[in-house]
Amino acid sequence: MAKITIQDFHQLATERLPFAELMGLQLQSIDSEGVWMRACYSDKFLRPGGTIAGPVMMGLADAAIYALVLSRIGPVELAVTTSLNINFLRKPQPGDIVARATPLKFGKRLVIGEVALYSADKNKATSEFTNSEIVAHATATYSIPPNSN
Amino acid sequence: MAKITIQDFHQLATERLPFAELMGLQLQSIDSEGVWMRACYSDKFLRPGGTIAGPVMMGLADAAIYALVLSRIGPVELAVTTSLNINFLRKPQPGDIVARATPLKFGKRLVIGEVALYSADKNKATSEFTNSEIVAHATATYSIPPNSN
Amino acid sequence: MAKITIQDFHQLATERLPFAELMGLQLQSIDSEGVWMRACYSDKFLRPGGTIAGPVMMGLADAAIYALVLSRIGPVELAVTTSLNINFLRKPQPGDIVARATPLKFGKRLVIGEVALYSADKNKATSEFTNSEIVAHATATYSIPPNSN
Amino acid sequence: MAKITIQDFHQLATERLPFAELMGLQLQSIDSEGVWMRACYSDKFLRPGGTIAGPVMMGLADAAIYALVLSRIGPVELAVTTSLNINFLRKPQPGDIVARATPLKFGKRLVIGEVALYSADKNKATSEFTNSEIVAHATATYSIPPNSN
Repeated sequence: MAKITIQDFHQLATERLPFAELMGLQLQSIDSEGVWMRACYSDKFLRPGGTIAGPVMMGLADAAIYALVLSRIGPVELAVTTSLNINFLRKPQPGDIVARATPLKFGKRLVIGEVALYSADKNKATSEFTNSEIVAHATATYSIPPNSN
Repeated sequence: MAKITIQDFHQLATERLPFAELMGLQLQSIDSEGVWMRACYSDKFLRPGGTIAGPVMMGLADAAIYALVLSRIGPVELAVTTSLNINFLRKPQPGDIVARATPLKFGKRLVIGEVALYSADKNKATSEFTNSEIVAHATATYSIPPNSN
Repeated sequence: MAKITIQDFHQLATERLPFAELMGLQLQSIDSEGVWMRACYSDKFLRPGGTIAGPVMMGLADAAIYALVLSRIGPVELAVTTSLNINFLRKPQPGDIVARATPLKFGKRLVIGEVALYSADKNKATSEFTNSEIVAHATATYSIPPNSN
Repeated sequence: MAKITIQDFHQLATERLPFAELMGLQLQSIDSEGVWMRACYSDKFLRPGGTIAGPVMMGLADAAIYALVLSRIGPVELAVTTSLNINFLRKPQPGDIVARATPLKFGKRLVIGEVALYSADKNKATSEFTNSEIVAHATATYSIPPNSN
């Protein structure tokens, strides 16, 4: 069972992570294999060329892995990203971006997660995205403080 | 000589890159070796643990390389990031973050840039940061559309 | 249909890529979704601590994506890696390492591939590894010279 | 003062890291800021296109950071790479490759190092390479087992 609920995460984000609200981030589901998170589109996402700015996708990827980590270890504040690598694969049209984060390894000190980002249709459920083409792919490492597991 | 001025970049950012304003980004100087960019602190930068959120640093690093690329090829809209790798080294205190972006390679199709991020004091000039400890280090690749050089 | 055969690849490796033989690399299969490649164990793989040296896994990951690229565009010599990112997840026991390489994006100029590496049992067919725990995960970008597609 | 000597490192490599000998690796100097390591050219380095194979450069970069780590913490066997990111910038001519490894951060649990690789002339001393164009640039993270510092 997840160690935080979707509601817990949103409360933490509202109170402590203003960046998440700025980017319209919504944790959509937590399951035994990973989490789905969505960045709800606004004009602020755009960059020259009429596509979505890279930092929106990086912020979504990072937050999705953060939610994944907290869902397994509970609300440990100082679980922090130590590195992130992202490949931008296709230029997304203006619209929501949906992220699927899953662990590559869940160690006691380090968690390595993988995130696939999809360009999303407002009316599509998140679980329908696994067959779409991905727009970006990231891996990131989170460091977990001692005695947090 | 730089192919865009600081003012050109800020106008482009104001009109076309709302994300830059949200993050308080200011291009501070362009010289023959690289650019300095600053993210001016606001409470929105914070994350749990009282430090600066990773996406702020990723957004700053990405924008600094974008400015570097445009300073050499002019205002080419579709110069886009194809990949970015960042290592978070130290947890910055609340405050400005300053970035120094320099090219590792400036090719016709691909530019690979390196960015060092420093935790900044409001009263320090950017050029004084090269001896401080860096808080994050990034490399990123930009793809330049054909016939833009 | 693949644009090179397993035999073509081994001939190219034998004649032109001595490194592949040093590392005991064997391309095992090419299918519509990717390739399987194996690094056949020898004592040369070891590093202090009794585990497999990182460069063996990096070399295998890189070669697997190279084979994937050639399987789609034919024997283009100057398809070269422009960047590679690898996460080492678990310390493999002495033994073969098996790689599954698949494309994240197959563009005209850039190919981004993903590779999962598994610690292998000599008697296991490669297709049985998808349910094992992975020991390392890599993404890499290959640049394809103009007019090669 | 360095916690291992050049000779200690070569003995460890000879006995425990056969890979290093295969690649002609030579630790050339250890100073207060970093280490210099060289990969002595042989035909085994070549890849199609007449340039140096990526895995040679990745192996050199990884070994240079390993030597850097050991020079500061002594011969800790299970200091292992957790991730490595490399950008290939220029195609080196057949010849030696020289690496300069320096720390971005030296923590108790994690070391993040940076490596610049230069195409080398046999008759050039390593310290002369800082003004040459680099052929590849890597960052890597090493994990240090508890109680090793």
